[in-house]
This record gives sequence, C-alpha cells and structure tokens, in this order.
Amino acid sequence: MSIEALTEADDGPRSKRPAILAAAVECFGEVGFEGTKWSQVAERVGIGQPALYHYFESKTHCLLTIMRLGLRNSDDAFRAAVADSGSAHDAVCAAVRAAFDISPQEVQQNRILQSNIALLSGRRTSEREEAERQACRKLVARIERNWADLVQQGIERGELARHDPVLMARSLLGLVVSVWRWYRPDGSMELPAIADFICGCCVRMVDAHTPEQPSG
Amino acid sequence: MSIEALTEADDGPRSKRPAILAAAVECFGEVGFEGTKWSQVAERVGIGQPALYHYFESKTHCLLTIMRLGLRNSDDAFRAAVADSGSAHDAVCAAVRAAFDISPQEVQQNRILQSNIALLSGRRTSEREEAERQACRKLVARIERNWADLVQQGIERGELARHDPVLMARSLLGLVVSVWRWYRPDGSMELPAIADFICGCCVRMVDAHTPEQPSG
Repeated sequence: MSIEALTEADDGPRSKRPAILAAAVECFGEVGFEGTKWSQVAERVGIGQPALYHYFESKTHCLLTIMRLGLRNSDDAFRAAVADSGSAHDAVCAAVRAAFDISPQEVQQNRILQSNIALLSGRRTSEREEAERQACRKLVARIERNWADLVQQGIERGELARHDPVLMARSLLGLVVSVWRWYRPDGSMELPAIADFICGCCVRMVDAHTPEQPSG
Repeated sequence: MSIEALTEADDGPRSKRPAILAAAVECFGEVGFEGTKWSQVAERVGIGQPALYHYFESKTHCLLTIMRLGLRNSDDAFRAAVADSGSAHDAVCAAVRAAFDISPQEVQQNRILQSNIALLSGRRTSEREEAERQACRKLVARIERNWADLVQQGIERGELARHDPVLMARSLLGLVVSVWRWYRPDGSMELPAIADFICGCCVRMVDAHTPEQPSG
C-alpha cells in the first residue's frame, strides 16, 4: 500500500485523510462506487461518521479527490519519466512505462478514475465537489498537453511523423488508459509485459519511418 | 434519428420500446444517467409511467438495453465491414471506418456505453437487468474475438506482424472507443477525418513492416 499516492503536501502526520482515501479506493475497487456505502468506508478506517465528514462532505467528494490525486500522480510520473530522455522515441517509451510502473493500489485508483470519468463532464452543485472537479479537468488538460508537447517537439526535430499533435496525444493516452478497463492483477498478463506491448504500439503510431496510410 | 439502431427483431410496429430508448439516449446524453429522472423519459415520449414500466422495470434496465443494442450494432457493423475486404490491412481499415460511420444518435449511444461500461462488472439483483448485463458481456467478448480473429488471420497469412492477437485486439478496440470520450459533434474535428487518423494508427500498430521495438 503506497499511502504517498493518496497524500497531499498539506496533510499533517495526524491527518486521517490519506487513510480514508485508501479505504475508499479499496471499497470502490471491490464493489464499485455505487455499491459502496459511505458508512463502510468509516468502518474500514475505524473512525466515526463525524470524523469522516470532517474531511469529506460526501462520497462523491471523496471519489473526486481520489480521481484528482490519480491524475496528479500520472502528471508527476510523466514529467519525471521524460525529463532525462534523449530522443522523442525514448521519451514516448519512458512515459508509457511510467504509466504502468505503479502499485496495485494505484492500479485500482486508475480503474476508479476511468470508470467514473464521465463525472467530470457535469457541473456539481456542492462547492467543494465542484472545486475538485475543476482541478481534475485542469489535470486532464495538462496531461493531454504533456503528450501533445512531446509529439510536437518530436515532429519539429524530425524524429516523429507529422500528425496532428493533439489528436495523436489523445490517441496515445486513449490506448494507454484503455488497459485499466481489462487489466486484472490476477489475470494472465503482468504489467511489465503489457507496458512493453503498449510501448511498441505507441512507438509505431508516432513513427516517422512508417509510410503514411492513404486516406479515403 | 435512426430508430433502427434501437429496434429489435421482436419489436412490433406498435411497440413503444424504440421510442422510449431514443428518448432515454437523448436524456442520458444531455444530463447523464444519474442526472436523468425516469419520469422525464416518460414525459419526452408522451406516455405515462405505467406504460414505461410495461417495457422497462427500471432506469438501469433501460440503460443496459441501450448498451446492449449499441454493442449489437458495433458487432453487426464490424461483420458487414470486413466481409468483402481482401487483405488484413483493408479489413482493419474497413472495421475502423465502420466504427465511425454512424449517426449522431449512435455517437451518443456509444458515449453512454463507454461512460457506463463499469456497470457490466457487477452482478445485478434484478433478473431482467442481469439478463441484459450478461448479454452485454457476451457481446463485448464477441467484439473482442472479432478483432482477435482478424489479427490472427492476418498474422497467419504473413500480412501482419506477430503480436499477441488478444492483446492487439484489445488495444485496437481501446484506441477506437477512446474517441467517444472526447469527440463532440460540435467540436473542431469531423468523424471522417478522425476515422482516417485512427485507421492510420491502427494500421501502423499491426503492421508487419515496422521493426519490433526492443523490450526492457
């Protein structure tokens, strides 16, 4: 259990927030968001409902926080991964590998994020939920821009084929996160092998050495 | 509005089922599944709640039916598209183009399907909902097998690179359906251009002429 993945800079050592988030990730992962009762999360942490409400005003507020922290971790991991890479190809591979080099808890967190991503499209009436939703949307846009910038730079340096960078970014990201739909920790494939495979697909997608497919 | 996309073989000419489904697609598309009141669907069709309950026992039952019919249409479209294609490349392109050659209502239907796909992982207590969920899961597996068979045949004929066909099928599908996450009919890109782009990506992913990426 990597509690750092659910911790924020302003969480003091006595904050129960990370533990509540970790319990919620377990519950949402086991029986889904709808299937989880808010009181079950409190029970799992061993706190009362008043303490729970001290940190989160609703189950949805907690879910949106889990989603935001998942997106924050993805953004951080991308930046760290591509920081030292030489060629655009290396950077694409490093970014893909970083996306899959995560703990089982983060896998669960990503699955929850992807399953509930539609939640980000509708305005929330609660102020705190809406603040988390807006923060999530900013991170989604930032992650998309990370990838688009990487593709754009690769094109400018003549290392990647000339494709619309935004569309390519969305496609690379779409392929990467699609794994969380079907991957199960007890399944037949392990994450490093999946990372290799997806990395190969992404490199071929952006490659300058493959002839353009005629359209129409 | 293509009512055929929401019609079943056993719907008689006086059945209100397709009209209810079409109204629900509109409502779920506009304000989301959670944001839609079941009574609003009845109002939009111009029927009473008893008539609504004659066809669907719950809003979730209706949602699962919309999802199943969306999956049925995708399966049918794939089979029709690849039936006459010569090479494996042509078949991949034809299948991708078919996935995007759909009406605005079917776009909405696909978006609803993708937004609520997590619903398929948990057993339903209602018998009719569970029957629809099982039918959806069968169709998801069949669509995955369609793509895996296509890749397998292409590999056997030496037209496609040797990749795990199931993993490749999931990746191609994952890329194709990822479009429904961000595509909006009033956005800057039109579906035929997106289809061209995704088709190019898919062809490069399966291509035998791109060197294998070293792993590790």
